[in-house]
Amino acid sequence: MGDLGRVPVGVVGASGYGGVQLVRLLMDHPKLELVYLGGDSSAGQEFSSLYPHLAHRVSQQIEPIDLDKIADRCQAVFLSLPNGLAYKMAPTLLAKGCKVLDLSADYRFSDLNTYKTWYGGDRTDHEVAETAVYGLPELYRDRIAQAQLVGCPGCYPTASLMALSPLLKQGLIVAETAIVDAKSGTSGGGRQPKTNLLLAEADNSLAAYSVTRHRHTPEIEQICSDLAGHEVLVQFTPHLIPMVRGILATVYATLRDPGLVREDLLTIYSAFYRSSPWVKLLPVGIYPQTKWAAGTNLCYIGIEVDPRNNRVIVMSAIDNLLKGQAGQAIQCLNLMMGWEETLGLPNASFYP
Amino acid sequence: MGDLGRVPVGVVGASGYGGVQLVRLLMDHPKLELVYLGGDSSAGQEFSSLYPHLAHRVSQQIEPIDLDKIADRCQAVFLSLPNGLAYKMAPTLLAKGCKVLDLSADYRFSDLNTYKTWYGGDRTDHEVAETAVYGLPELYRDRIAQAQLVGCPGCYPTASLMALSPLLKQGLIVAETAIVDAKSGTSGGGRQPKTNLLLAEADNSLAAYSVTRHRHTPEIEQICSDLAGHEVLVQFTPHLIPMVRGILATVYATLRDPGLVREDLLTIYSAFYRSSPWVKLLPVGIYPQTKWAAGTNLCYIGIEVDPRNNRVIVMSAIDNLLKGQAGQAIQCLNLMMGWEETLGLPNASFYP
Amino acid sequence: MGDLGRVPVGVVGASGYGGVQLVRLLMDHPKLELVYLGGDSSAGQEFSSLYPHLAHRVSQQIEPIDLDKIADRCQAVFLSLPNGLAYKMAPTLLAKGCKVLDLSADYRFSDLNTYKTWYGGDRTDHEVAETAVYGLPELYRDRIAQAQLVGCPGCYPTASLMALSPLLKQGLIVAETAIVDAKSGTSGGGRQPKTNLLLAEADNSLAAYSVTRHRHTPEIEQICSDLAGHEVLVQFTPHLIPMVRGILATVYATLRDPGLVREDLLTIYSAFYRSSPWVKLLPVGIYPQTKWAAGTNLCYIGIEVDPRNNRVIVMSAIDNLLKGQAGQAIQCLNLMMGWEETLGLPNASFYP
Amino acid sequence: MGDLGRVPVGVVGASGYGGVQLVRLLMDHPKLELVYLGGDSSAGQEFSSLYPHLAHRVSQQIEPIDLDKIADRCQAVFLSLPNGLAYKMAPTLLAKGCKVLDLSADYRFSDLNTYKTWYGGDRTDHEVAETAVYGLPELYRDRIAQAQLVGCPGCYPTASLMALSPLLKQGLIVAETAIVDAKSGTSGGGRQPKTNLLLAEADNSLAAYSVTRHRHTPEIEQICSDLAGHEVLVQFTPHLIPMVRGILATVYATLRDPGLVREDLLTIYSAFYRSSPWVKLLPVGIYPQTKWAAGTNLCYIGIEVDPRNNRVIVMSAIDNLLKGQAGQAIQCLNLMMGWEETLGLPNASFYP
Repeated sequence: MGDLGRVPVGVVGASGYGGVQLVRLLMDHPKLELVYLGGDSSAGQEFSSLYPHLAHRVSQQIEPIDLDKIADRCQAVFLSLPNGLAYKMAPTLLAKGCKVLDLSADYRFSDLNTYKTWYGGDRTDHEVAETAVYGLPELYRDRIAQAQLVGCPGCYPTASLMALSPLLKQGLIVAETAIVDAKSGTSGGGRQPKTNLLLAEADNSLAAYSVTRHRHTPEIEQICSDLAGHEVLVQFTPHLIPMVRGILATVYATLRDPGLVREDLLTIYSAFYRSSPWVKLLPVGIYPQTKWAAGTNLCYIGIEVDPRNNRVIVMSAIDNLLKGQAGQAIQCLNLMMGWEETLGLPNASFYP
Repeated sequence: MGDLGRVPVGVVGASGYGGVQLVRLLMDHPKLELVYLGGDSSAGQEFSSLYPHLAHRVSQQIEPIDLDKIADRCQAVFLSLPNGLAYKMAPTLLAKGCKVLDLSADYRFSDLNTYKTWYGGDRTDHEVAETAVYGLPELYRDRIAQAQLVGCPGCYPTASLMALSPLLKQGLIVAETAIVDAKSGTSGGGRQPKTNLLLAEADNSLAAYSVTRHRHTPEIEQICSDLAGHEVLVQFTPHLIPMVRGILATVYATLRDPGLVREDLLTIYSAFYRSSPWVKLLPVGIYPQTKWAAGTNLCYIGIEVDPRNNRVIVMSAIDNLLKGQAGQAIQCLNLMMGWEETLGLPNASFYP
Repeated sequence: MGDLGRVPVGVVGASGYGGVQLVRLLMDHPKLELVYLGGDSSAGQEFSSLYPHLAHRVSQQIEPIDLDKIADRCQAVFLSLPNGLAYKMAPTLLAKGCKVLDLSADYRFSDLNTYKTWYGGDRTDHEVAETAVYGLPELYRDRIAQAQLVGCPGCYPTASLMALSPLLKQGLIVAETAIVDAKSGTSGGGRQPKTNLLLAEADNSLAAYSVTRHRHTPEIEQICSDLAGHEVLVQFTPHLIPMVRGILATVYATLRDPGLVREDLLTIYSAFYRSSPWVKLLPVGIYPQTKWAAGTNLCYIGIEVDPRNNRVIVMSAIDNLLKGQAGQAIQCLNLMMGWEETLGLPNASFYP
Repeated sequence: MGDLGRVPVGVVGASGYGGVQLVRLLMDHPKLELVYLGGDSSAGQEFSSLYPHLAHRVSQQIEPIDLDKIADRCQAVFLSLPNGLAYKMAPTLLAKGCKVLDLSADYRFSDLNTYKTWYGGDRTDHEVAETAVYGLPELYRDRIAQAQLVGCPGCYPTASLMALSPLLKQGLIVAETAIVDAKSGTSGGGRQPKTNLLLAEADNSLAAYSVTRHRHTPEIEQICSDLAGHEVLVQFTPHLIPMVRGILATVYATLRDPGLVREDLLTIYSAFYRSSPWVKLLPVGIYPQTKWAAGTNLCYIGIEVDPRNNRVIVMSAIDNLLKGQAGQAIQCLNLMMGWEETLGLPNASFYP
């Protein structure tokens, strides 16, 4: 138990963007205390040498990854590592009594064959994987509250599913017409240097990538299928936008019922998200700006219906690093601890 | 006749972004000579006081708009004015023997009722309007070559139609499934100051606007219907991107023939655009970057087919101010003069 | 007295960037409560219609500016208006017992002739103006604590003075060698639409403006002269940077004592800012990034000495809208109320 | 001899930003023909696989670097390689009769000890190095015209020297007061991926770097000393700006003659640059925007004098990759060939 009765937690993979978000959020959380920062290539460095602006708040050193030590010190641990590493650590950590929140793709799939098709790897942790819950609280709040292992959603799936879920759950759309045209800031590509993510390359330009074959597609489809009760294929097209943070998902689908108008859909969405404090539905005619969500755990949703062709267009905006990653992980831990899911998370951006 | 046997041309509406592009392009055109710069609020000012970086190339003053003087001096004139002004000038200019290229919406519609529904105004120029040709050379090359009056396309319709036309012309898609998710830099909003176009507002953010009701929708649908031979409705959703120049249109549609693969479509597009020097089809797996087209009259097109659901995804990238506006107008004038349509227009961007 | 014993405060000029920062900061302040939002052109509108992303936190309407009503409801009021309006309101508000924090230039000058030279206007409030304290807590903490009227500093003067003050106060530099090369994001220009602040104009470009004649010059010089004990002229050159928030001031000056090295200066700065929790001195070799300060009330300072010519180079980075405007105003009110000056203000940015 | 009597030239180091600028500029040069593209890690690749947008203009493959082959085919060769490689190739190429233009630092220094202090390396090419001319045509036009080996200036030195040279050459300033506060877009860092050049890191932020110790300092000082006729130390501080292209140098210095006003300086600069077609002096009160120079070989200069303290402030703006690198190299080759120095280089930007 940490200071003031706070729950001690650790972050493994502290040097990347996911790691620094977690550290930043934990600073202000009233019931959690960061007691361990782990890394591989960054082990031995002061965290403040990587992020000097946080030196007055974080005095910790990044330690080598030692599962015994982590389990000894932490009641819960966030794994913020590249894909394919968490599944080698989580079983041990769970066995030692830690709650585990994995920010990689390792525990997002109920069918490990899907994981292996898209991510490769040799999975022998089937029993553990079966206990994992998909960490989207707006859909799986109750299961998360009972979980010891949470596979936190990808950033694109979070934005996409927030827009699509009410439509599929209520059977409102012709499922195979669902198209997600998604747009993301470049921080989604992580902190490792890649030529296409250089400012000189990505600024003042825009393109799609991984068209028809992005790895977030099976993740979106898994949850959509679960909601619809039958297999659903979704067209998912990501675009890289010249900005740092934020995802906008523009979702298109054809309504089954030609009589529905946008006010009806607003009512349906309001009901669906009634218990979801992080979802903000916008009034008729207002569409979400990604900057509104920046630095918060919020998801803004705007809805439009084209009466000419009975198509619904839903736009959802999140901060890809918070609601799309680290913020949502803490939202999940709040639930796992039996706390309010809003606890300690920022809920209003600075603007402009 | 101007210096060196060049054709004398004028630009009305010289102070806006369309105007400055025209002036810039005309500087380097080997057979055209800018002999008149007209404006309303900017009349009496040196052009170089508005755009000091061009002072060494442009010494002209902006003159008041005087149709007699224009017709007297110019063999062809570009009208680069807000919507609703060109139709009050074009009939007179045409009567006096000028070729007219209008960059506004005034002469884009074959049915003036459509124009009035979306743009208002009291049109009494039906006879003149009937002679107008839609200035998209890749579709209407021969008619443009014969025209005296060209209604130059909007920036979004240009990008959208370059992607959609082969599909509709060849009857390859289920027309009502066509969705255009379009993304534009903020220069598309023009040079007048608007709060939402401030850097402080638009930078590091992204949103859709005018969803289901943007004025470029009827323009896209008019041409699509013409190509398809029956009325076509298109879902068109524009987004404002934090960059200066460029449009990317991501087009989705369901193929009629489930056997078509992307290589087939590349072949079909290649044939369709065989005589179109400004269209560059990208090889399999390469998708267009808007920056590649910046400062050029090029349109880059990339094609993908999702074999799982038989949907085609076409991406087209243009510079909204050149191929989407001023460059295309000069491409049209080249055709009207019987010249190569590539004459005097930039065909390779600086990168990065 | 507001809810829970909070001190009721008002914001006049709620629609601009200063206003929305104040509203945002007040949301999270534990001892202040926003009870009045006033505006002129925006009166009668819901605040959330201007800033829809804050609708879930702010339900207030913007009211017409009525000094009686303000004084009746508010114990302190922030005036966030264009220059030249506050001095017509402050005397009345003060007479009615309100503490007044003015974010404009109206109460920054000890000599109203300087004000009139640079800002114009017909000042008849000399007696009131004499009671105003310059709201830079790092220099005038004690006087602010006793003040009823605070003239909050400009954004550039804040960044400039944070870098310059220890040098001048300790007589370390040849005063007339002081040069401030300042760089600001475009939000410093406010929310009114101006052509040069459009994203299309300002993005991917950079220039100086108001060289040798920016209105923040006399403000910087007034405080520098006060610190030095004699009249000091400072070279101040502002530049507009293609980013939203942030100011970096790069300050050059020649040291009097040729033996001082950067470690000495770090020691001197550390002593000078010992009681200033918002100032963070960076270790040797680390220079401040404006993004580190974004969304916080922090000022980061880095110091370098060129041993070849005995020149010191000090770099200070702030968020122009927080430490440079609204955050600092609340820091001042904290002091005026006898609270910790850090109370309720954000002290760590999200990065990247 | 190439097609149409064009002079055959080669580019070694084709994959970087310098390389792609050269290729792009050579496309439109009326008297040069690109006959060789060489690279190390990129050898064997199609140039169009690196830069797909140029596929319709460049069909060449990148070849391994083979000095015999280069000298065989090329009359002149551009070396666009990391520092420390050119000096191992240039002697051989020169011996075989090639003109050599080196874009690295290898041949910029008249004293190789200075080179070795700042760049390291083991130089044995002293004789060859002595024949190298510093490739700033505005200062060394005649010598460049006679040279076989040109050491092309760095981007920062180009911008800095264009602003400083008239002042030093005419003895107008107190040399030791010269300060260059320089700001550059991130393309100056090249195409290799570095964390600090990622869009996620560099966008919406700003900082100085290499304060008091940037490697362009000795280069600036060498030329300044040459112009002044005595050793001159210059304070040089570079900043990284969130934009792709462009450098702005803001230069401060104290005038020797307190009577000089800005109109005098404009006259002096006009005389100094009378024969320099790439330099554009701006009228009183107009300051250069970097975007005005983007995509051109121009240098815009604005001048201000502060009558209060007799300080001159000169601002110069260039495109760091053209006038600051590849454009200037071609300007030099134009002179070496006895052609107009403006030949084949772009002289007006697209705006915005």
